[in-house]
Amino acid sequence: MPTSFRELNPPERILMGPGPSNVHPRVLRMMSLSPLGHMDPEFFKIMDEVMVLLRQVFQTENRLTIVTPGTGSSGMEAAICNVVEPDDRVVACVAGYFGERVCDMVERCGAELTRKEAPWGSAVNPERAAKVIDKVKPDVVILVHAETSTGVCQPVEAISEAAHRHGALVVADAVTSLGGSPTKIDERGIDVCYSCTQKCIGAPPGLAPVSFNERAMEKVRARKTKIRNWYLDITLLEKYWTQERSYHHTAPVNLVYALHEALRLIEQEGLEARFKRHELNHRALVAGLEAMGLSPLPREEDRLWMLNTMRIPDGVDDAVVRRRLLVEHNIEIGSGLGQLKGKIWRIGIMGYSCNPNNVLLLLSALERILAEEGYKAPAGAAIEAASKVYSQT
Amino acid sequence: MPTSFRELNPPERILMGPGPSNVHPRVLRMMSLSPLGHMDPEFFKIMDEVMVLLRQVFQTENRLTIVTPGTGSSGMEAAICNVVEPDDRVVACVAGYFGERVCDMVERCGAELTRKEAPWGSAVNPERAAKVIDKVKPDVVILVHAETSTGVCQPVEAISEAAHRHGALVVADAVTSLGGSPTKIDERGIDVCYSCTQKCIGAPPGLAPVSFNERAMEKVRARKTKIRNWYLDITLLEKYWTQERSYHHTAPVNLVYALHEALRLIEQEGLEARFKRHELNHRALVAGLEAMGLSPLPREEDRLWMLNTMRIPDGVDDAVVRRRLLVEHNIEIGSGLGQLKGKIWRIGIMGYSCNPNNVLLLLSALERILAEEGYKAPAGAAIEAASKVYSQT
Repeated sequence: MPTSFRELNPPERILMGPGPSNVHPRVLRMMSLSPLGHMDPEFFKIMDEVMVLLRQVFQTENRLTIVTPGTGSSGMEAAICNVVEPDDRVVACVAGYFGERVCDMVERCGAELTRKEAPWGSAVNPERAAKVIDKVKPDVVILVHAETSTGVCQPVEAISEAAHRHGALVVADAVTSLGGSPTKIDERGIDVCYSCTQKCIGAPPGLAPVSFNERAMEKVRARKTKIRNWYLDITLLEKYWTQERSYHHTAPVNLVYALHEALRLIEQEGLEARFKRHELNHRALVAGLEAMGLSPLPREEDRLWMLNTMRIPDGVDDAVVRRRLLVEHNIEIGSGLGQLKGKIWRIGIMGYSCNPNNVLLLLSALERILAEEGYKAPAGAAIEAASKVYSQT
Repeated sequence: MPTSFRELNPPERILMGPGPSNVHPRVLRMMSLSPLGHMDPEFFKIMDEVMVLLRQVFQTENRLTIVTPGTGSSGMEAAICNVVEPDDRVVACVAGYFGERVCDMVERCGAELTRKEAPWGSAVNPERAAKVIDKVKPDVVILVHAETSTGVCQPVEAISEAAHRHGALVVADAVTSLGGSPTKIDERGIDVCYSCTQKCIGAPPGLAPVSFNERAMEKVRARKTKIRNWYLDITLLEKYWTQERSYHHTAPVNLVYALHEALRLIEQEGLEARFKRHELNHRALVAGLEAMGLSPLPREEDRLWMLNTMRIPDGVDDAVVRRRLLVEHNIEIGSGLGQLKGKIWRIGIMGYSCNPNNVLLLLSALERILAEEGYKAPAGAAIEAASKVYSQT
């Protein structure tokens, strides 16, 4: 019987949205290796190497630095459902869509939630957050290091210091930042950190790197109630990933292969060089977009390197421009989320996608489409401004 | 800086354990395509096709037939955490390791659990299960169709009939059976069914096909309490997979590509032919193993086709034999789980792994190793017995 659907032949996109980012051919090749069994001694060796390499990227000594078997959001869920108990007091710093998601998960855990908010596009003010923390004396403080919905970098150190004064655990979301800017979770006092594979790490989506320190695991082990989530129970994941190697789930073996290769690429490039690459391309991209007359949502000092949020000019149709970039140039950029829908574009330069060719191409394509859509920018100014940044280095 | 670890070069295993099974080269090739964005219109088309193909394999008309972004256990968790509310009365039919896992998850949901047990290696008796159901009048009845830890097939129809007499929802685990034997979830009155990709479907691990009917979704929508698990909240997954297409998680795009191709292969082979293939190879394998003097754990009428559990003969060292099969022949078979550890082997013939060559090879390799380990079986009897089965068709 002939099949009703044809073999897939998806277009080759240039991924410059909020992730996934493009994947290096060396990493893609690993995806199509035959899977080993999840209890094969040869696979255990690979898991051991992945843990070593992940610790380097998280900049941590945490023994329990592993992946949860799901996308970045499974990392968020794992962090929260394990350390947050019903009736815990939790302070969440909320300044965007992913801060809201944190709150949703915290409430589902039955905890008492206090929100410290900032307008979307700003960072949470650390002094004011400290005051809330002093007042609430929480068990857990959660913040999003790199808020993917607004392009804002949050002040982790100051907030984590305030949290630790009260013995609270600090949970930080590094979904967008890990592998593209310093995370330094030990130095910054982050007790639990989670991320994803498909942004600055440069692997396909499907796994969430997570790191729990001993303080966090002490709280987990002292829980009065069972973790409500069997699949993401960190004590069971720990038994599979560390010495005991007892069966929990059937690991997504091929995704672990790909992550291994992506982490090798990071090590070969060097973390500092990789961070500099993200910073440089960010500066060139923003200079170009500003020369085109677009303005970034966050203040300069709050901006992320890997995810650039730009206000959509008046009179320009968000969906039409994104659609034309996709159809005419195979370039994906991201739309705004939640209250920023239709108001901003989110332009990602992450991992393998983060390079001058992509920056110059996007600037040229966007300039061309905007001109055709009736938005007038000084011709060539964008490329000139970006080039200037590149030639200064 | 040179990397500290070398590029991966995992051995090519013949996977004859409880899964993962081997993956067809056509499916592996899909894994290394460049990912599309999870909100790309081209990816939405692929999701639509996957839903159509999955319905064929589940043998269902259920609109909500999708994948959860995690391994088979995420499907189990999704099924249970969505339909089971705190204080619901739940009857779980338990006759093995995965039935126990169901109970663990049900208890984490805060429900009132009644266990209907059967010895590991037997099926739950449907009349006795019906009596328990009549007494408890549960909200939900859960059973494992194919119990991967014992190789036993459970009587779904009879139990589902008893459950529906009291208006209970029926949740069935088809992790091992889907794609290898009839699931017919509509005909059997299964309201929620979940599976995995890496067994009889023949794709790499990392996704869980799930199907919820309208009755199940009515219970979910009428919940008095929020689902405790944001990541696997079926109402959010539904919004991403169906009309609305609203962002939830970053889909594991490459795994969806691979699943699409695996499902195309199933459609090309035809479900009935595929089931027959699993049945035939099962008969040949068991005939060969019995001729070698090994005995299956379950009664003949309870046996699964795709997962064959055989008692380890007295005096034979479980770990040594499995290790030798792996090292000397690159063949993986499974060990016993829980109370069956050291007592049985679990030999899988699933999906692409299910073919006469693998059956003959395993029989030969096992005969050779057992002889060297001091276990005497009539030489050549295994191959003769298996060949007889094949030549009868």
